[in-house]
Amino acid sequence: MKTRRSFLKRLTAGTFLAALPLSGVNAATKKKHFSGILIHHVFFWLKNPGNEADRKQFEEAINKLTSIDVIRNAHFGVPASTEDRKVVDHSYSYSLMLIFDSKKDQDIYQVHPKHKDFVDKNQHLWEKVIVYDSVDA
Amino acid sequence: MKTRRSFLKRLTAGTFLAALPLSGVNAATKKKHFSGILIHHVFFWLKNPGNEADRKQFEEAINKLTSIDVIRNAHFGVPASTEDRKVVDHSYSYSLMLIFDSKKDQDIYQVHPKHKDFVDKNQHLWEKVIVYDSVDA
Repeated sequence: MKTRRSFLKRLTAGTFLAALPLSGVNAATKKKHFSGILIHHVFFWLKNPGNEADRKQFEEAINKLTSIDVIRNAHFGVPASTEDRKVVDHSYSYSLMLIFDSKKDQDIYQVHPKHKDFVDKNQHLWEKVIVYDSVDA
Repeated sequence: MKTRRSFLKRLTAGTFLAALPLSGVNAATKKKHFSGILIHHVFFWLKNPGNEADRKQFEEAINKLTSIDVIRNAHFGVPASTEDRKVVDHSYSYSLMLIFDSKKDQDIYQVHPKHKDFVDKNQHLWEKVIVYDSVDA
């Protein structure tokens, strides 16, 4: 019984749990301060932001795009209803924040067939795109 | 033994592990797709980006700023050496991406004494700031 009891003890100990390969959990994104990542943040301004068919097409296309395997984490967003201060830009239609493990993975993403397909089939929908790529300071 | 065996079975099952309160791990950031969050992404253009004293002051100030408790996650960055495409803006000096659990937490952050102190003591260092606030699409 001793072996089983100590196994249970380890199972309930934080250190053991931390070592388990939990799917989708990465050390860097478990912490308050993200590190060792590349953030690729894209802002899209649609030509017709009030057109429901355009929005539906774009949203479905983003779903396909973010299935690319080298993407570690993704957040697909719209402007928040935060205060209209002069430094805050609420004018974009959609935000896509992608986290990669490395510049190498971002480079793979750029030339991935699903990414090329996304641009080819949807670029007529937007009039402006701004991308910010950041690594740890 | 049946009870102990089924307990072990549950312990090794993903569903049970997902329910454990792992310190520092939040449901939304464990998944590939972040949701239920507000992303507050700020880009700073320093007046003198090559000035080491200015950079040191700014970096130390960011360390203090990101200790504010309502911030769920933070990434402090600089431009990545990704390809110079016309849509990519590599011109900023620093990126600060903060993740909040809600607009309410972001609002608390905006008026937090540490945030006000950060702006008061460091705003002479930058010539331009752009903020993008995004919530789930």
